[in-house]
Amino acid sequence: MNQLELTSTLKNAFHEDIGMGDLTSESVFTENQQGKGIYTSKADGVLAGLDAVIAGYNLLDPGVTVTLHKKDGDFVKKGDIIGEVEGSIRILLTGERVILNLLQHLSGIATSTRNVVDLLDDPTIAVADTRKTLPGLRSLQKYAVRCGGGKNHRFRLDDGIMIKDNHIKAAGSIKAAVEMVQKHAGHMVKVEVETETEEQVLEAVAAKADVIMLDNRSPQEVKKLINIIPDDIVVEVSGGITPQNIGSYKNCGANVISLGWLTHSVKALDISFNLQ
Amino acid sequence: MNQLELTSTLKNAFHEDIGMGDLTSESVFTENQQGKGIYTSKADGVLAGLDAVIAGYNLLDPGVTVTLHKKDGDFVKKGDIIGEVEGSIRILLTGERVILNLLQHLSGIATSTRNVVDLLDDPTIAVADTRKTLPGLRSLQKYAVRCGGGKNHRFRLDDGIMIKDNHIKAAGSIKAAVEMVQKHAGHMVKVEVETETEEQVLEAVAAKADVIMLDNRSPQEVKKLINIIPDDIVVEVSGGITPQNIGSYKNCGANVISLGWLTHSVKALDISFNLQ
Amino acid sequence: MNQLELTSTLKNAFHEDIGMGDLTSESVFTENQQGKGIYTSKADGVLAGLDAVIAGYNLLDPGVTVTLHKKDGDFVKKGDIIGEVEGSIRILLTGERVILNLLQHLSGIATSTRNVVDLLDDPTIAVADTRKTLPGLRSLQKYAVRCGGGKNHRFRLDDGIMIKDNHIKAAGSIKAAVEMVQKHAGHMVKVEVETETEEQVLEAVAAKADVIMLDNRSPQEVKKLINIIPDDIVVEVSGGITPQNIGSYKNCGANVISLGWLTHSVKALDISFNLQ
Amino acid sequence: MNQLELTSTLKNAFHEDIGMGDLTSESVFTENQQGKGIYTSKADGVLAGLDAVIAGYNLLDPGVTVTLHKKDGDFVKKGDIIGEVEGSIRILLTGERVILNLLQHLSGIATSTRNVVDLLDDPTIAVADTRKTLPGLRSLQKYAVRCGGGKNHRFRLDDGIMIKDNHIKAAGSIKAAVEMVQKHAGHMVKVEVETETEEQVLEAVAAKADVIMLDNRSPQEVKKLINIIPDDIVVEVSGGITPQNIGSYKNCGANVISLGWLTHSVKALDISFNLQ
Amino acid sequence: MNQLELTSTLKNAFHEDIGMGDLTSESVFTENQQGKGIYTSKADGVLAGLDAVIAGYNLLDPGVTVTLHKKDGDFVKKGDIIGEVEGSIRILLTGERVILNLLQHLSGIATSTRNVVDLLDDPTIAVADTRKTLPGLRSLQKYAVRCGGGKNHRFRLDDGIMIKDNHIKAAGSIKAAVEMVQKHAGHMVKVEVETETEEQVLEAVAAKADVIMLDNRSPQEVKKLINIIPDDIVVEVSGGITPQNIGSYKNCGANVISLGWLTHSVKALDISFNLQ
Amino acid sequence: MNQLELTSTLKNAFHEDIGMGDLTSESVFTENQQGKGIYTSKADGVLAGLDAVIAGYNLLDPGVTVTLHKKDGDFVKKGDIIGEVEGSIRILLTGERVILNLLQHLSGIATSTRNVVDLLDDPTIAVADTRKTLPGLRSLQKYAVRCGGGKNHRFRLDDGIMIKDNHIKAAGSIKAAVEMVQKHAGHMVKVEVETETEEQVLEAVAAKADVIMLDNRSPQEVKKLINIIPDDIVVEVSGGITPQNIGSYKNCGANVISLGWLTHSVKALDISFNLQ
Repeated sequence: MNQLELTSTLKNAFHEDIGMGDLTSESVFTENQQGKGIYTSKADGVLAGLDAVIAGYNLLDPGVTVTLHKKDGDFVKKGDIIGEVEGSIRILLTGERVILNLLQHLSGIATSTRNVVDLLDDPTIAVADTRKTLPGLRSLQKYAVRCGGGKNHRFRLDDGIMIKDNHIKAAGSIKAAVEMVQKHAGHMVKVEVETETEEQVLEAVAAKADVIMLDNRSPQEVKKLINIIPDDIVVEVSGGITPQNIGSYKNCGANVISLGWLTHSVKALDISFNLQ
Repeated sequence: MNQLELTSTLKNAFHEDIGMGDLTSESVFTENQQGKGIYTSKADGVLAGLDAVIAGYNLLDPGVTVTLHKKDGDFVKKGDIIGEVEGSIRILLTGERVILNLLQHLSGIATSTRNVVDLLDDPTIAVADTRKTLPGLRSLQKYAVRCGGGKNHRFRLDDGIMIKDNHIKAAGSIKAAVEMVQKHAGHMVKVEVETETEEQVLEAVAAKADVIMLDNRSPQEVKKLINIIPDDIVVEVSGGITPQNIGSYKNCGANVISLGWLTHSVKALDISFNLQ
Repeated sequence: MNQLELTSTLKNAFHEDIGMGDLTSESVFTENQQGKGIYTSKADGVLAGLDAVIAGYNLLDPGVTVTLHKKDGDFVKKGDIIGEVEGSIRILLTGERVILNLLQHLSGIATSTRNVVDLLDDPTIAVADTRKTLPGLRSLQKYAVRCGGGKNHRFRLDDGIMIKDNHIKAAGSIKAAVEMVQKHAGHMVKVEVETETEEQVLEAVAAKADVIMLDNRSPQEVKKLINIIPDDIVVEVSGGITPQNIGSYKNCGANVISLGWLTHSVKALDISFNLQ
Repeated sequence: MNQLELTSTLKNAFHEDIGMGDLTSESVFTENQQGKGIYTSKADGVLAGLDAVIAGYNLLDPGVTVTLHKKDGDFVKKGDIIGEVEGSIRILLTGERVILNLLQHLSGIATSTRNVVDLLDDPTIAVADTRKTLPGLRSLQKYAVRCGGGKNHRFRLDDGIMIKDNHIKAAGSIKAAVEMVQKHAGHMVKVEVETETEEQVLEAVAAKADVIMLDNRSPQEVKKLINIIPDDIVVEVSGGITPQNIGSYKNCGANVISLGWLTHSVKALDISFNLQ
Repeated sequence: MNQLELTSTLKNAFHEDIGMGDLTSESVFTENQQGKGIYTSKADGVLAGLDAVIAGYNLLDPGVTVTLHKKDGDFVKKGDIIGEVEGSIRILLTGERVILNLLQHLSGIATSTRNVVDLLDDPTIAVADTRKTLPGLRSLQKYAVRCGGGKNHRFRLDDGIMIKDNHIKAAGSIKAAVEMVQKHAGHMVKVEVETETEEQVLEAVAAKADVIMLDNRSPQEVKKLINIIPDDIVVEVSGGITPQNIGSYKNCGANVISLGWLTHSVKALDISFNLQ
Repeated sequence: MNQLELTSTLKNAFHEDIGMGDLTSESVFTENQQGKGIYTSKADGVLAGLDAVIAGYNLLDPGVTVTLHKKDGDFVKKGDIIGEVEGSIRILLTGERVILNLLQHLSGIATSTRNVVDLLDDPTIAVADTRKTLPGLRSLQKYAVRCGGGKNHRFRLDDGIMIKDNHIKAAGSIKAAVEMVQKHAGHMVKVEVETETEEQVLEAVAAKADVIMLDNRSPQEVKKLINIIPDDIVVEVSGGITPQNIGSYKNCGANVISLGWLTHSVKALDISFNLQ
């Protein structure tokens, strides 16, 4: 994880949440009243973003000490203690919500990623994210996918080429489009072509795409199309894949299955924070 | 919606997504090639965040024109056309993902808010959000809740008092805690007390809390406790309420039901963007 | 005080004041020449913002040590020593002006707040600030008001409702305006109505406003109007109140007197910094 | 005025004031309800910062039109109409407070500057500001001083040399200090020496300072010391000068009188905004 | 070019250069005095960054009109007129230096890139940049390389894998290192291996690197090593290549020659701005 | 050097370079693997910007320790060890490029500055920079000039007056222009006049300019013109001066020679970073 990004996200979130002060805690606790709080998982899942506890309290008060019992990528069961923090109670409570919001969100992503990896049950196929992320959170969301055992698709519009329907139409053909992007992009950039028909797959093969996406295909269709794609071209399947049907893609021969909902429709992992 | 906040969120998201350029579109389209794109709903739902289309394209290129056929809060059915944009195809595609990511997220919040409002089917009870929002997105998320017919709980730690378990313990009693916060906070701030027992409810009533929260209570328990709370105190129910059980709270007598998952576990509304 | 806000204000001010370097101190002192400086009050007053000394020097050089002999809210007499700093003389002088500017401004606010609290001499009436603050300094200015024994009116346009003349005209009546804001705002937001006539006061009472403001009223008028307002509605008096006449409002029966000039027309408290 | 600085200050202030929305105006006015508002001076004074009206509304809504009847530096009498704005009433009210806060503060500075210029009544002596400004507002405050007929002392620690007591002690003598700064600073930087005794004045003359400050001197002392300072050295008087005694400095022979309170203890000029 | 990046760079540079105002132009020109200025090339070269003229003046004053006679990538000869601007003379001069500084720097990069492309005279070998760029300017510098006919190497540490000496040592072998990065990185990321010996080249071939860098090799060595590398692996040559020796790499068989000095040691293209 | 500026520049550069993570180092090194790296000069030169090593690693990981063997302004020979860093290898490599890019750039400036100072070989003439700097880097670039033994010309448009051709034309004469700027600017600002003819020099003398610039003059012309300029006016020579001809300006009598290319056309000093 890029720690500078994490710190910047947390600082922004604290400004958003604290505003001109935590009226309740400032009223009830003196500045120096010390206490201890415990993070506990309230559900089974995979953790991601534990550095938010350290970086978050460090921003508010370097005097808070954090002891983590788990690390990112660890599986936790309901009731497991994740970590402990000690310091000014006022600070512990002021920081609570922002830190939990981020930790629960990222752990939710890691948990659902791990879940589909397990449901797919095919180590030859990577489960990947997409650019369907939430504004300002992409770097952290993609890190969480990795914590869950997933892989990252391209990070931005600048680090990978995706030739889609509109580009093909504008260029005239897949071949023309691939040539145009190769002329523009550097030698470190891979070229992926989205295909909707067998003809397009063959054209993409002929154009020497690095990656071919099979859009909205059943496992049977994937198995058939895989035969006309050389081994050194990566095959990605995308569209309409859910926890319910992902198991049927086992052994389909693709290299990557990408899932937008890993990051755009996240169910937070329930984690609690309690003062002792 | 605070337009300055929206613009700032979009600018940040474009930096995150575009990086050093949209390699694909820059390769295939000339700068001035004009086109038209259409936003279509791919599912039934409620819209929120349509200003993101206007503000987003305005940031990238003031030459893009946006025509909206719907407005925030409108219900759309699968297949409904939401709006159209015309301008440089390159810009239309470069901006596509960031705008959709935000629009789908906010519309997802509005949709699930409207859904629980309908399931509750009791106009005397407001459905409210919480501070369980995603980092950097609170203002927009809370706006989306309003678009869905919900109401906003406090925005920050500075605009409302929530006396919880830890505060009560530290203060010694609910009465003491309320006195402490009233001494510290201004006259425009309401005081809410979270209660877990009937005794606490009675104490909160005696302390003249503005709002009493009944934590993790069944509809039957709410109905019973409501009787010991004077009419001029707002009653909020929170904890463990889902789309499955919210209907049973109809006519329970509470004024507000608050739901953290409205904003922390959002399912995006499926919206597509297609060039004509 | 929100420490993140304080740090951000100081960082901004140092950029503004230091520019490309402190030419004088860089010329005369070596980087490591150590010294000690003393903050002394040059007038009687109340302190606010002492954390600026700690946070300010911490930004420039964590090697500077700060020892404070006073704390925010303390009354000081002319000649009292407030605190001492030790470290690189060059850093002590480079940071001097920015830290003093903030400390003197905030202490000036605390001092005049305490002054009017004393002149009013009525603990049943809170002295409150307004939104008439200086750009970028509201959070710190409102903190200073609290240090002086005052209370904060609303922080922003989003955390309290103020129905004024224009809103009443647009809504048609006070009753209509109150209903409109209650429909829009959440249950944690209080509603205040500004009144200019006895009729308006009666209307605001009927509309169940949480707070009624009596605008530009003499103590005698307040005493009379207070009789038609139920006890559970907060009464705020505002407009035309100065240190000269505030004493006459003693025992007027209002709950709050708000004063714009506490933050918009601040006389700095004179504090000096001298190297030993 | 640096327009980029003005816009940035206003954007920051709107974030601070609006937060998640103007609850009152959003409740009562529809988005498109049009209206007209008038800025009127409630006191005699000199205007500064009128661009804040234009830039402020432009940030919130480019549809608002602003017509100014006065310009910065103009003298206004109580009751004079300063300008008019037309547009969405909701926007007019949302922006009102931030714009007034800045305009009243800057006009307050211009007014008191003009006042002391008039009291001094000696066009051969410039009235100047200092670095005793409020955090984040220096550029605008110093602009306001110019609007009032004053002049600016140095802007930052990098654009002028001020050799004070501590520097002289560290360097060993005024001569040594001047040599040290001349070695370090470029040829576009002027060197000023603060003096407290006649001996120091003579030393500063010998060291060829560009500017000599006479600290805390009566008019009589200034007149006497002026005789030992060559004409091509600028003489600045500072310390203890108030509106009450500034008139006695007329014809004292100094070139500049600098006053910290012009910017650190500002009385806002009363300006009102009313919807028609 | 990412226009948001350009605008943000220019805004930052104007804050840096203008400070509290352009003292000279503010003194001599009234705000509305109109004029016309001309950009002329003072040397032969290739242009890059002309949008800086448009975006720069748009930031300062949307009333300035810009007419460009050339576009990015155009070759200009000494004396060629590049474009004209009309508007407030004060604004034209205030913006002059910042705009020229950026335009001259980017055009300098484009010019030297085009120069080495011409000297190499081999369209089968791309001339590429590196990550040796100046802080904050990478996106614009890499755009300028493209304007000069060069190609971009990776943009950041996240969009391409470069296995260097230290990574190989830590991993134990090139094979092990490639396996480690493939396990971590997504399927859109290419893997490049830096080699210093023939053995390393063979290992990189065996490990199926996407790109092999031949470090510090003469044309003769490249020609020899190329024979042991399969055609579908990209060959990059780097290290010690200058305008003096690049011609000797013609027909060496490599695909890419990368040059750090294109962006780390830039000679600005001389461009003048003169008022008519 | 302004440390806050340095930190802000580095933070920005790390965001630019690291993006969503250093894929290579994250793959190959565990988070805690410790190592040691050495900075070595690969060429003779003068160092500037060594604080970038300390501040840079401090941003990424306060656990990295930095030991510097040289300081800014030191002359190094090819092969000299500059400093060592110890800590997490992953962090050492992630930070390497950004730190080197800045250090090499600033040391390049210091080196060429020292070079021309030596070539000029006349301690009575200062070598100065200009405002021809790179966007966002001016403060650090001007610091590097000082490290090389040069002096700084004005920092911004606000800290010095430069009356050029256009200003003279607009004002009507040099005399008129000087009077206009003196009326507008404060008493700490020096006034420089650019001259192209002997008549202009005489006019500037008559107008009592603080500094007279002789534009594009040979050493012989400077020697002649110097005679008509009084000693207390600073004489600056600028235009067309290169390392090749600067030696001929020795003993020309000017006080300052300013060179734009010191900062606009910088050749980086070659410095390497190697893990042991």
